[in-house]
Amino acid sequence: MRIGAIEAGGTKFVCGIGNERGEIEDVISFPTDRPEVTLGKVISYFKDKQVEAIGIGSFGPIDLTPESPTYGYVTTTPKPGWGNYDFLGTLRREFPVPYGWDTDVNAAAFGEATWGAAKGLDSCLYYTVGTGVGIGVYSEGRLVHGLVHPEGGHVLTRRHPDDDFAGICPYHGDCLEGMAAGPAIEARWKMKGHELPPHHPAWEIEAFYIAQSITGAILLNSPKRVILGGGVMQQSQLFPLIRNSVKTNLNGYVSAGEILDHMDEYIVPPGLGQQAGLCGALALGLSALKDQAL
Amino acid sequence: MRIGAIEAGGTKFVCGIGNERGEIEDVISFPTDRPEVTLGKVISYFKDKQVEAIGIGSFGPIDLTPESPTYGYVTTTPKPGWGNYDFLGTLRREFPVPYGWDTDVNAAAFGEATWGAAKGLDSCLYYTVGTGVGIGVYSEGRLVHGLVHPEGGHVLTRRHPDDDFAGICPYHGDCLEGMAAGPAIEARWKMKGHELPPHHPAWEIEAFYIAQSITGAILLNSPKRVILGGGVMQQSQLFPLIRNSVKTNLNGYVSAGEILDHMDEYIVPPGLGQQAGLCGALALGLSALKDQAL
Repeated sequence: MRIGAIEAGGTKFVCGIGNERGEIEDVISFPTDRPEVTLGKVISYFKDKQVEAIGIGSFGPIDLTPESPTYGYVTTTPKPGWGNYDFLGTLRREFPVPYGWDTDVNAAAFGEATWGAAKGLDSCLYYTVGTGVGIGVYSEGRLVHGLVHPEGGHVLTRRHPDDDFAGICPYHGDCLEGMAAGPAIEARWKMKGHELPPHHPAWEIEAFYIAQSITGAILLNSPKRVILGGGVMQQSQLFPLIRNSVKTNLNGYVSAGEILDHMDEYIVPPGLGQQAGLCGALALGLSALKDQAL
Repeated sequence: MRIGAIEAGGTKFVCGIGNERGEIEDVISFPTDRPEVTLGKVISYFKDKQVEAIGIGSFGPIDLTPESPTYGYVTTTPKPGWGNYDFLGTLRREFPVPYGWDTDVNAAAFGEATWGAAKGLDSCLYYTVGTGVGIGVYSEGRLVHGLVHPEGGHVLTRRHPDDDFAGICPYHGDCLEGMAAGPAIEARWKMKGHELPPHHPAWEIEAFYIAQSITGAILLNSPKRVILGGGVMQQSQLFPLIRNSVKTNLNGYVSAGEILDHMDEYIVPPGLGQQAGLCGALALGLSALKDQAL
């Protein structure tokens, strides 16, 4: 099989070709520009590739409701040209194949559940902590869309006692993204995350906020695995801090061996590494092809 | 059809007989005692009822994993006699019919999605705010179990600025249940909730905590409806306070008409009223019967 995959980020697009084993055979990447320029490049890339299906994991917000007249659109983004833009339709007109279409983080969750750290499990959460914070939700074998789609990065936070940073989310101030995304780290410490030493108090505070959100998400959704990706999570010292903080928060309340005894295997980095997003898009494309065959 | 329904609460059991239209035709209720006494009464009730299936919505924690050797058990409860008790197996030995088995709050969510306030929708959250706080999660047409099952009532809270109450949850202190369940109201104000006048500042604080949890749950799961039941929610002055607080918290971030323009129809009381739990058990039983027929 030959499946197209598009990881459509707000900063960067990655396109690739892969197969049913999750192997990426070819890849190209370019900065996100206005939609006609960006999708022009996407279309030229896939032009001679003869893909059987295409999967797209997109920045958002996007319309995921199949019955909606704007299904497949990027909706209310302030990104120039992309507001109310028919992303999926533009591609569909060029390549009449089955499409998988979901958020970037849901795609990554699906990729991890298909070939990565949650392989064989019917639920997981995929966090990306980078320029923003996003959470993909896979529950009972299905990606969660609901009314719009998950936007868990904006959950409100309880303050770390040593932290008086106001937060930088234009909507919520001190929500998770406002307190813990890369730009929040930089605004708080006047240094980029990767410039802060691993034993800097920044990381304990960072872990506190991420762990608080994971605690809430475990309590609400009871995921079988929690996967933490994105640029900030390259700071591997965060993992033990986060695991300990989640354990302290839960305080033995959720009586599952995975949490009480095997936290190291429960809160983990992406099994697919930097390819979680692109493999996720591949998995969406593959799934669309299978659905069509039914 | 003739379906048995059991709403198995920690304080009270309700058993009934219903049909495929969600109509309860007969009902009995008694206090929860030790399991052998309580299930003895359940068994005598159903003995001559010739039910085709039985649905159970149970207090927890319970084992919902079909592959588990303790599937159908109540697990780690401190309630005398019920810890590690084979609830489902005890009934199965008496009545060899298909069984639906889930948490009390998941059952209520399913009942509401089948015949109540979320009828026709493929997602909703069902809150009960009473002696404790529980949240049933129905997503993409499925009840969410995951690793164990949702325990969203224990999500950590951000403090109301005028509230210095320590919280009464033995695990987490000031989690949602510790701050907002009926006993927390009583401990904070030295009066039971129903004794507090509708304009007492208690209700604004109560709404603040419930709304905070709803905000987080909307962001994480994007449910199509949020249903608030349980004894505390009989205080109908809470609904507008909660809706306003959720709206303030989200601050326009989730761009959906249901939230921006129709909050009165989005955060609602149970459509099945006090029967949400029992009808939910009925819906579980009905679903088990249908699954068996496949």
